[in-house]
Amino acid sequence: MEGVDHLAHERQKALFDVDEMKVVWAGSRHTLEVSDRMSRLVASDPAFRKDNRTMLSRKELFKNTLRKTAHAWKRIIELQLTEEEASKLRSFVDEPAFTDLHWGMFVPAIKGQGTDEQQQKWLPLAYKMQIIGCYAQTELGHGSNVQGLETTATFDPKTDEFIIDSPTLTSSKWWPGGLGKVSTHAVVYARLITDGQDHGVHGFIVQLRSMDDHMPLPGITVGDIGMKFGNGAYNTMDNGVLRFDHVRIPRDQMLMRVSKVTREGKYVMSNVPRQLVYGTMVYVRQTIVSDASCALSRAVTIATRYSAVRRQFGSQNGSPETQVIDYKTQQSRLFPLLASAYAFRFVGEWLKWLYTDVNQRLQASDFSTLPEVHACTAGLKSLTTSVTADAIEECRKLCGGHGYLCSSGLPELFAVYVPACTYEGDNVVLLLQVARYLMKTVSQLPSGKKPVGTTSYMGRVEHLIRCTSDVQRAEDWLKPNVVLQAFEARAARMSVACAEKLSEFANPEEGFAELSPILVEASAAHCQLIVVSKFIEKLQQDIPGKGVKGQLEILCSVYALHLLHKHQGDFLSTGSISPKQASLANDQLLSLYAKVRPNAIALVDAFNYTDHYLGSVLGRYDGNVYPNLYEEAWKDPLNDSVVPDGYHEYIRPMIKQQLRNARL
Amino acid sequence: MEGVDHLAHERQKALFDVDEMKVVWAGSRHTLEVSDRMSRLVASDPAFRKDNRTMLSRKELFKNTLRKTAHAWKRIIELQLTEEEASKLRSFVDEPAFTDLHWGMFVPAIKGQGTDEQQQKWLPLAYKMQIIGCYAQTELGHGSNVQGLETTATFDPKTDEFIIDSPTLTSSKWWPGGLGKVSTHAVVYARLITDGQDHGVHGFIVQLRSMDDHMPLPGITVGDIGMKFGNGAYNTMDNGVLRFDHVRIPRDQMLMRVSKVTREGKYVMSNVPRQLVYGTMVYVRQTIVSDASCALSRAVTIATRYSAVRRQFGSQNGSPETQVIDYKTQQSRLFPLLASAYAFRFVGEWLKWLYTDVNQRLQASDFSTLPEVHACTAGLKSLTTSVTADAIEECRKLCGGHGYLCSSGLPELFAVYVPACTYEGDNVVLLLQVARYLMKTVSQLPSGKKPVGTTSYMGRVEHLIRCTSDVQRAEDWLKPNVVLQAFEARAARMSVACAEKLSEFANPEEGFAELSPILVEASAAHCQLIVVSKFIEKLQQDIPGKGVKGQLEILCSVYALHLLHKHQGDFLSTGSISPKQASLANDQLLSLYAKVRPNAIALVDAFNYTDHYLGSVLGRYDGNVYPNLYEEAWKDPLNDSVVPDGYHEYIRPMIKQQLRNARL
Repeated sequence: MEGVDHLAHERQKALFDVDEMKVVWAGSRHTLEVSDRMSRLVASDPAFRKDNRTMLSRKELFKNTLRKTAHAWKRIIELQLTEEEASKLRSFVDEPAFTDLHWGMFVPAIKGQGTDEQQQKWLPLAYKMQIIGCYAQTELGHGSNVQGLETTATFDPKTDEFIIDSPTLTSSKWWPGGLGKVSTHAVVYARLITDGQDHGVHGFIVQLRSMDDHMPLPGITVGDIGMKFGNGAYNTMDNGVLRFDHVRIPRDQMLMRVSKVTREGKYVMSNVPRQLVYGTMVYVRQTIVSDASCALSRAVTIATRYSAVRRQFGSQNGSPETQVIDYKTQQSRLFPLLASAYAFRFVGEWLKWLYTDVNQRLQASDFSTLPEVHACTAGLKSLTTSVTADAIEECRKLCGGHGYLCSSGLPELFAVYVPACTYEGDNVVLLLQVARYLMKTVSQLPSGKKPVGTTSYMGRVEHLIRCTSDVQRAEDWLKPNVVLQAFEARAARMSVACAEKLSEFANPEEGFAELSPILVEASAAHCQLIVVSKFIEKLQQDIPGKGVKGQLEILCSVYALHLLHKHQGDFLSTGSISPKQASLANDQLLSLYAKVRPNAIALVDAFNYTDHYLGSVLGRYDGNVYPNLYEEAWKDPLNDSVVPDGYHEYIRPMIKQQLRNARL
Repeated sequence: MEGVDHLAHERQKALFDVDEMKVVWAGSRHTLEVSDRMSRLVASDPAFRKDNRTMLSRKELFKNTLRKTAHAWKRIIELQLTEEEASKLRSFVDEPAFTDLHWGMFVPAIKGQGTDEQQQKWLPLAYKMQIIGCYAQTELGHGSNVQGLETTATFDPKTDEFIIDSPTLTSSKWWPGGLGKVSTHAVVYARLITDGQDHGVHGFIVQLRSMDDHMPLPGITVGDIGMKFGNGAYNTMDNGVLRFDHVRIPRDQMLMRVSKVTREGKYVMSNVPRQLVYGTMVYVRQTIVSDASCALSRAVTIATRYSAVRRQFGSQNGSPETQVIDYKTQQSRLFPLLASAYAFRFVGEWLKWLYTDVNQRLQASDFSTLPEVHACTAGLKSLTTSVTADAIEECRKLCGGHGYLCSSGLPELFAVYVPACTYEGDNVVLLLQVARYLMKTVSQLPSGKKPVGTTSYMGRVEHLIRCTSDVQRAEDWLKPNVVLQAFEARAARMSVACAEKLSEFANPEEGFAELSPILVEASAAHCQLIVVSKFIEKLQQDIPGKGVKGQLEILCSVYALHLLHKHQGDFLSTGSISPKQASLANDQLLSLYAKVRPNAIALVDAFNYTDHYLGSVLGRYDGNVYPNLYEEAWKDPLNDSVVPDGYHEYIRPMIKQQLRNARL
């Protein structure tokens, strides 16, 4: 970092070893090393600069991203990067692009749903990017309800082909990234129809564009669906619309790992268990949780550093004003988000383990943990993305007026992040899935069926619905077992209460629909418990480095106690804690902020983000905010001329009172 | 409306007279008529179309707004519109522009702070727009702390002039709308210095640009501060930066109504009471609350109509899927926002009355209600803008994936609205001001001082901290007095609890700082009580029209009970209600949703918004969403060509494996 470090005095305050914390955050020394190297590679290459992206028109923006994508791929080849390195490099380029879908959805779909033969044919092409693929599932009329998709794939035994068709306007594929302008191929989800019979939704590899001139193939209408939230954000991506007019593809382009259509047109299930596809889902959701901790930590870094730079009020006799990070209101909004970033990081790490675990079980045909894993990953996806989206906006507000400038980086971070609340499962729909699992778990308790994994606390439900908290003093809330019991009691009691209300309905489905608003709340309580308990488990590991573990213990308490305060109503209405205990918890929370304060800057430094990646004048490592804000302003296209375009046509006639005759 | 009305069946369900509800919403038949006429005038004039705004570059966007502004002014002159009509017309044009500041801040500043002489000189010029003015207060380093502004205005008795100067980088004026490219004049706030003495911040009229060629005058550096959140949003506005290098202005351009500088350089207070300026502040905040109900109701209209159009899941034997508005989770998120729109409308209406009342008192030199009015308007500004910003984003999420498209109108509505949480007082800083007033009120209770206005319930504090709620059945929560008592008890108890904790500190200021997070919560409780009580008061008026009052009673209950559920923790921890009563309140709330459901579409129709004003494909009056979404998509510039710009440079070399040699 060049020049003076305006935050040096803040960095000196830290009471822990920030380099060791970097290792904890990254997950391992190896990951830290790779991330560090790749982020610097991107940051130091002028081809990847992104400070101008909010000023580009849609076409310029999109072309610019094509350029960066090609440059990144070129560098990946030249430097012979590993898959891990290439993936990190792409993520540090930090611009949504068709490659996200090619690597993140198209390739995994073929891997997961293609036969060995299909994989051998298509994967080498995809790996070399000789073809570019996307994932065409969502339609104009169907998102969450995948089984309601309308696109059809009708087998024609005469020619041994499928006829892909869009029978209605609402069956138009809509949203797939990379589809609009770039992809040559797509995995298309369509209702398989053989001999007049509908077999439900299946995946098909469909070529969309000519490999010669990139023109759409006959029968295919394809384009971009238009501008989305934010200036840059997802406007670098060609989310697309796609219609098929009886497009024919060879039979062997149906993804046939789990079921297939024979030459004669017979629909046959293979002996590969359907459950295998869930492995991919766990993988994708684990990535989303990991991305949440990443987006949240970026926002928190910006807000924390700027809060230490910004001063307002409190000047006495010409002394500098108070740093806004010293205000308790600022701390009570910011520090829980800082703690949440760490909490989400650790639960994401645990999900990575869960993915390995569930994959091993699937290979051994052990499907016993699948329903619990499904509920748990659905819930954590929902929880972490909702919190992160809100938190980014809160961080923006914590930066006051200047957070509203694109140069703060926060508007773009918000706009690019929020779709995570909707894609891969709408967050409310996902919580309802969790609720279904919880209600099933509760209903099976009397039969002695032992709840597994993250629901195992339900096995102690008898105790949990009767226990009282031991808390007598504020410090008691620092004990992990005390916190855990309160969260378990609250979650268990809310689930049990829902189950009791549910049992009053003659029709369970009707009851579930009627009670869905409170079921969602019970699910949220369960998911928060998971995050708290995984943070506590993390602290039971050996964590080296001076003061590192101590800092994490403080953050864990902040995370749990801020949740407890925010959802006080749940804890009190279920009688899990008393009003006095709730008040003590908040006292403890407020006093913990003082312990976070001196470490705040070092705690965000531990994320190890480059200024390029943060893309924020307010979040600069050196804290030299004001001169850079000032300099940034002049780069706006409006400042190209002193007198603005339009002055002579519109402003001058107005002030010269000549508007009546003006032609506008 | 042309074509088929896809929502006709929904409109037929309504159990109340929607035309009468329109009058209630507008406030009067006269206002409804003017609004209706002006909104149609704008909607039918192609010069005001705005469906392309998210696709324009910054320069095009800005020039386009200059054009619209000039066209609007031309129409205002041609049609000889009244002030009320002109103001409505500008608001329906629905694009932030320099005129907002000219009419909303520059003119009122001169009116409020200028002497009669100054008003006679400057106002006619401003009224005819012979000069264009802005309001230059905020600086790069100072927002909330106005008293900390650094710009100086030093009196030079030799020349009878003030020298306006920006002594530091952080003293650069920063943010004022209309400043960057358009304004010829500004009211500049600067520290007045006479004979080496600093008299604090005062306002000065400063000419910025030449009336001949629009070039900045000598000593003035001025420009735009760059891109802001959103595609269109506030990027139509030239928020500006301004630096002064010893710029001289005549002495009579200091706004001298309250204090002045004589020819000899003596600083003299006039006999006009300082408090008069508070009248303007009440006026501005009342406008902000009214704008909040407007923005919120727009978002709610879009989400409600689209929720009735969108279907997902629940198809049985080929029947259509379920309308998403029929899901209880959708209702529990949407209907409280619908109720909030009405609640904010009525509290805004009351604030309009309060403004008149306080002005009459000020004229009669009665300043007794000022502190209460100040606290109340600060709190309501904070409450309504925070809720509205979050609610717009929630409405966007309620529209699922399609809400993320700019054509939904919601991303722009969010981006253009959120600054309201920060400008005219940061929302958290404002709640702390409310808290100060509440703590003062509580501390004066023992002396027998009677609390006034919105704090008068504090006069019954003895009762409120001991009373218990009478609720025994869910229906009891429909009684206004029962609801009111619960909200009063909660607010009073939270304030008293804060005051007690505060008294434990030797240094009250230190205590206030330490306790600020809980003080903010007490303030919020107080403000929510105000909104609930004003909604209840509204229902005590005579409201004609079949079923109108009944609908409003339902909405009032929904508003109050959703708040009660959301802040259950407050009600329970203070013992204002019991857990059982809290649970009954939520039961009642859930059952009320069924009563809102058939009226939902009519309740948003009552806002009387044109499709032009809504600017949303999802929120169309006729509900014909999908064909229009599809059509809108093709207008994106990326669809100008089938093969995208950049294909030959970047995509083709990639898939043809020629990247290694490519120059990117």
